[in-house]
Amino acid sequence: MCVKLIGIENIPMVSPGDDIGTIIIEAAKSEGLEIMDHDIFVVAETVVSKAEGNLIELDSINVSAQAQEISEKTSKDPRIVQSIIDESVEIIKVGPNFIISETKHGFVCANAGIDESNVESGFLKPIPVDSDESASLIRKTIESATGKNVAVILSDTQGRPFREGAVGVAIGVSGINPLWNRQGERDLYDRKLETTTIAVADELASAASIVMGQANEGLPVVIVRGVEYAEKLRSTYSDIKPILRPKKFDVFR
Amino acid sequence: MCVKLIGIENIPMVSPGDDIGTIIIEAAKSEGLEIMDHDIFVVAETVVSKAEGNLIELDSINVSAQAQEISEKTSKDPRIVQSIIDESVEIIKVGPNFIISETKHGFVCANAGIDESNVESGFLKPIPVDSDESASLIRKTIESATGKNVAVILSDTQGRPFREGAVGVAIGVSGINPLWNRQGERDLYDRKLETTTIAVADELASAASIVMGQANEGLPVVIVRGVEYAEKLRSTYSDIKPILRPKKFDVFR
Repeated sequence: MCVKLIGIENIPMVSPGDDIGTIIIEAAKSEGLEIMDHDIFVVAETVVSKAEGNLIELDSINVSAQAQEISEKTSKDPRIVQSIIDESVEIIKVGPNFIISETKHGFVCANAGIDESNVESGFLKPIPVDSDESASLIRKTIESATGKNVAVILSDTQGRPFREGAVGVAIGVSGINPLWNRQGERDLYDRKLETTTIAVADELASAASIVMGQANEGLPVVIVRGVEYAEKLRSTYSDIKPILRPKKFDVFR
Repeated sequence: MCVKLIGIENIPMVSPGDDIGTIIIEAAKSEGLEIMDHDIFVVAETVVSKAEGNLIELDSINVSAQAQEISEKTSKDPRIVQSIIDESVEIIKVGPNFIISETKHGFVCANAGIDESNVESGFLKPIPVDSDESASLIRKTIESATGKNVAVILSDTQGRPFREGAVGVAIGVSGINPLWNRQGERDLYDRKLETTTIAVADELASAASIVMGQANEGLPVVIVRGVEYAEKLRSTYSDIKPILRPKKFDVFR
């Protein structure tokens, strides 16, 4: 089994109003890259958010007393703190230079996923408002242009407890189930596997991140090609929710 | 940029005393797969532990009072609980059907990484005693047989807080730095990136996991080929420690 991680070249700088699905199709065409059945497109959320015009102008932010207070604890710009509060349903941990919260989407991550890199100066970029819907729109555009069944994963780069360094994770999916439940399958000794649910969408996002890099490579879209079980995981009704552990079942919250 | 994830076919069932490096070289040769400079070998820890004879016979375990007590809370076999205690330096959380601990290596994970799948009935398989040393032995065997510079990552499949599903993670490295510190590099707008340390060893382990599967595929070794920055991350003195966040810096402990 050989899987390829193909970084699509020629993706231009994205501006608000751009259609990411169309940009992907054109960039692939321009390098003679044919889109195939069961290709999985991992798209960096940053270009999607930009295309959707989902930018916050720093100077337009009104700072609340809560934001001012957290700003003092974290040494963060109070306007950035305010935007993190606005994007969150719960602030979970605050410390020197970090804020961990649960976003409106249900992601537990630092700074509500808002970042300042790879956006114009003076702006912040939150993650897309409805990351599954963003993925779905891209999938439908690619599918209707090519007639192929594809999947789309929106990816972000996030830190995690216990381990240093950030990794690519999935924040939106379309055309693929984010979890692969292998319970009941058999191991090499023909015994049933006990608990083996694989977060395949996160593994795909991490794999794509190897190619994307994080700085100035300009490779925000990676095709993962040749995943034999992609067909089995196909779903046109999937969303990211099954990968988000509810608070009441999370022993670290 | 195109990265390939190549699952090596023809890896036989591994027995205690086997040399994994030699097995990899022979399996690659048998399918005409040439090993190249900067190939990154991701090896499932399960075959390494087995080759090292690192198995615990269930019937040989003496159950302590502490193990008995945790067994009642978790509904786990008291012998399995005892082996988890033996492999750990600290039991962190205990609940119905789970034990999260810090292993002797410093990994915070469920069940101290001990599992029962893909080992013979009546035995438990802990993770390798010195996972960096295991990786190093494999790397040196491959390098002296081929004359190529390669890297080896030992991988395990672990759950994590906040997100459902397990993913491939690195538990031992040789020939590669596990973290890629990109602080000070520039984004697309020529501004310095603020905090961008990527856990590249974990991303590589997750990528390989896509190919390995977890059940009866028998693809425990995956070559990640074509990572352009592999040369930059080359180190023959690396180990997994930089990826393990010290307890005092971990806000979720």
